Amino acid sequence: MTDMQRMDVPLTVAGRTFSSRLLVGTGKYRDFDEARAAIEESGADVVTVAVRRSNLGQDPDAPNLLDVISPSRYTILPNTAGCFNARDAVRTCQLARELLDGHNLVKLEVLGDQKTLYPNVMETLSAARTLIDDGFDVMVYTSDDPIVAQELESMGASAIMPLGSLIGSGQGLLNPDTLALILEHARVPVLVDAGIGTASDAALAMELGCDGVLLNSAIAHAKQPVLMARAMKRAVEAGRDAYLAERMPRRQEARASSPTRGLITE
Amino acid sequence: MTDMQRMDVPLTVAGRTFSSRLLVGTGKYRDFDEARAAIEESGADVVTVAVRRSNLGQDPDAPNLLDVISPSRYTILPNTAGCFNARDAVRTCQLARELLDGHNLVKLEVLGDQKTLYPNVMETLSAARTLIDDGFDVMVYTSDDPIVAQELESMGASAIMPLGSLIGSGQGLLNPDTLALILEHARVPVLVDAGIGTASDAALAMELGCDGVLLNSAIAHAKQPVLMARAMKRAVEAGRDAYLAERMPRRQEARASSPTRGLITE
Amino acid sequence: MTDMQRMDVPLTVAGRTFSSRLLVGTGKYRDFDEARAAIEESGADVVTVAVRRSNLGQDPDAPNLLDVISPSRYTILPNTAGCFNARDAVRTCQLARELLDGHNLVKLEVLGDQKTLYPNVMETLSAARTLIDDGFDVMVYTSDDPIVAQELESMGASAIMPLGSLIGSGQGLLNPDTLALILEHARVPVLVDAGIGTASDAALAMELGCDGVLLNSAIAHAKQPVLMARAMKRAVEAGRDAYLAERMPRRQEARASSPTRGLITE
Amino acid sequence: MTDMQRMDVPLTVAGRTFSSRLLVGTGKYRDFDEARAAIEESGADVVTVAVRRSNLGQDPDAPNLLDVISPSRYTILPNTAGCFNARDAVRTCQLARELLDGHNLVKLEVLGDQKTLYPNVMETLSAARTLIDDGFDVMVYTSDDPIVAQELESMGASAIMPLGSLIGSGQGLLNPDTLALILEHARVPVLVDAGIGTASDAALAMELGCDGVLLNSAIAHAKQPVLMARAMKRAVEAGRDAYLAERMPRRQEARASSPTRGLITE
Repeated sequence: MTDMQRMDVPLTVAGRTFSSRLLVGTGKYRDFDEARAAIEESGADVVTVAVRRSNLGQDPDAPNLLDVISPSRYTILPNTAGCFNARDAVRTCQLARELLDGHNLVKLEVLGDQKTLYPNVMETLSAARTLIDDGFDVMVYTSDDPIVAQELESMGASAIMPLGSLIGSGQGLLNPDTLALILEHARVPVLVDAGIGTASDAALAMELGCDGVLLNSAIAHAKQPVLMARAMKRAVEAGRDAYLAERMPRRQEARASSPTRGLITE
Repeated sequence: MTDMQRMDVPLTVAGRTFSSRLLVGTGKYRDFDEARAAIEESGADVVTVAVRRSNLGQDPDAPNLLDVISPSRYTILPNTAGCFNARDAVRTCQLARELLDGHNLVKLEVLGDQKTLYPNVMETLSAARTLIDDGFDVMVYTSDDPIVAQELESMGASAIMPLGSLIGSGQGLLNPDTLALILEHARVPVLVDAGIGTASDAALAMELGCDGVLLNSAIAHAKQPVLMARAMKRAVEAGRDAYLAERMPRRQEARASSPTRGLITE
Repeated sequence: MTDMQRMDVPLTVAGRTFSSRLLVGTGKYRDFDEARAAIEESGADVVTVAVRRSNLGQDPDAPNLLDVISPSRYTILPNTAGCFNARDAVRTCQLARELLDGHNLVKLEVLGDQKTLYPNVMETLSAARTLIDDGFDVMVYTSDDPIVAQELESMGASAIMPLGSLIGSGQGLLNPDTLALILEHARVPVLVDAGIGTASDAALAMELGCDGVLLNSAIAHAKQPVLMARAMKRAVEAGRDAYLAERMPRRQEARASSPTRGLITE
Repeated sequence: MTDMQRMDVPLTVAGRTFSSRLLVGTGKYRDFDEARAAIEESGADVVTVAVRRSNLGQDPDAPNLLDVISPSRYTILPNTAGCFNARDAVRTCQLARELLDGHNLVKLEVLGDQKTLYPNVMETLSAARTLIDDGFDVMVYTSDDPIVAQELESMGASAIMPLGSLIGSGQGLLNPDTLALILEHARVPVLVDAGIGTASDAALAMELGCDGVLLNSAIAHAKQPVLMARAMKRAVEAGRDAYLAERMPRRQEARASSPTRGLITE
């Protein structure tokens, strides 16, 4: 298989290397067992957890999420879901680092309002700067604004994570052209984070050249989450393959598959 | 993995059962080796061959395509590519049956003109009727017209194969809503045939509920055909999984992945 | 205004010339007054009426639609809405010709089923042939199949009227690429008939190069039909202007409106 | 015409009322005469001029743009095209105010880079704050980020002007869903500025509920600019009418225009 000898390199973020390009969350599952089974089926190495909404040890008397999603098996990616300003987001990351024994890879998200959950890029930039100065490796949830993405990269963000569409909306990639502008310039990994609704959305994100996809509701809110987890694993792989294989040109005109004078039999 | 106990049934066309829902062609490859490697990587059981453009034994002195794509390993699906009227298409199928020792599963395509290669549904209906009366199992390439699809099914077609977009155009599915009308009523397998350009197109076709996808140029004209063959295999599986898993609802509004009051840790 | 000296020629169908490229129906209005006001505001010359569902004199004791939509002011275009086979459609046209004193311009529609109202192209072709032989000028509602469109034109249809999307769905143009295939070859007028939902849909149809647009629900089912009638009149004119003006190229890249070295002030 | 008695109110920005909702630029025309004719045909009241690229009197020996586009007839809207940081943009507005005898209505644009011309929202926010404090009425070109739009409105911007797509690209509205988020919350006028390519794009922007459209290349780069100017005038009016008329619902299913039991004739 000559042409697959061009082996793909694995996803590397802030010096950490992951075998899967699919990153998943832990929210919205019916129970622990479903979450565990779906995450396992997804093949993800990285599991993001909402520090302010999960027990990572803050409450020593309640069940600890890390007993379900073990840090020895998964890279835990604490996130700042629920934070609406830079200060809260920074504190949340610092709490996570404490709870996770110095673990400094975080996913920053600072949201604009409760209704749209659209990122607040001004607060996001401010929090990112503080966190990077404080020694964190910061993966940043952001809008699809390519200039903001460049600014985040310039200040040392470890990964840029633009939305495909609103968090939990399942609308897929509403603006692939703008994502393409981010991809064109980025020198750090770019992962679509938010909006993926089904397998073809994930494949499309990868075909655009994204380095990975992070999703949660698309699996947890499917009727059969474990089966959808497998769909997403395969879709991310399919999209990555297709990106590397470089698709045929898109044409307005038809072109016969079988030429008048057959190549094979001549 | 409880919810995957709902096992998928395999694709069955005219009583023949196939393990893969991806069907591929043999045209446009650089050489025999590339065709063989890509087809193998695709995992396809069914390989369609253009009778009028391939040597299936018509010329005993030239290399025979069946030595490359062995009927003992693959189900050969002779097609009538290059036929622009019912009579030529019928004759071509009859020739194929002769060359393939009575094999009666064929893919009928009767095209409207050299430029668009759009199906001529009037001639297609006429040829289908003749072939079915003559004992063929006929998979039919057609437009996305749902009434024509019903008519083909009524007369006994074994599978309906609407186009996604023009043959060889790689534009994907230009009209998923109309495909959905066909899917809603069909009682025989429906496979998208023509127009698939990349992996996410194939996944989307399966998510709509198609029973399979047939493609050729999308693999053969990718820069790395063998890698694209793997992409397509995975994409069809991903799309099928996603269809069975039943995707999350699409919403205009955002919805937090991590609820204010966490389900997992409470 | 030099470049508008390229005056547009008016729409001509079967030798009849119309000043407006917007054609409208009479169904679904709240009452006669609303229908009259909306149709007047639309600026349409041609008003299509469903012969089987309107009283054009069949019932001498009931109000006659022609007293509201006067044939002295409008070109009445009888249509065969509600016909599901060629025979009924042909009879309906013959009845209309009788009621309208020999008027032979008709809109043929033969539908596939009650649910989708998608055209039955086989029956449509058969009815068109009969009607043309019988001296009718036939404008034909059809699918977006370019080969069927060519066949209709070959047999002498006066205008081809492909759907944009399902009748009454308001989904706009689901497949502009396929409409473009029809437009590329047609030598008779092509009018989008069915699916227009709002003004921009009508403008888009005209920008593709359509010769006109026929619609009904988009006006009658708007909250304010008379205002929407004006919207449609303006949208059709805007789309026609834009088509004739030939739009700027679409680019992936940005380009400054104001050049570094200003053309105007130098 | 009862339902049009709901008269539309005119566009009002910072206390100034305009009869047209179409705003145009002056760049890229072949010569003065073409610019003058196209602008006149567009019906625009507001004409935006790039202060750094036009002579508004900076050079007393060169032709003055204001002799072509007279401030007695048009509202001149100086813009900061070509500025890539807040300081340059602020200075440019101050220069414009001086040249235009105290005129304080400006269009602020601070761009991110020469290639994409995408707005730099950080610098834009900073410049907007300075200008508002300095007594300017500021219409602001920005991304489609709804949180940035709210921030601009909170600080006192007179109008929010999100892009439809990249300046000069003619790609239309790439992300109508995100524009809708801005429209939902804005209490000041929202005008699409950048990306409009043809008439249907302008109509669509207005149908979403935008208060106006600003464009330049779509007219100046059409093959026949004056004719396209008329197209745009009509398209903006059509889209506004359609918005006020409230379009029919969009449905997946068909619905007969002519009911089985006709309303009109009964």
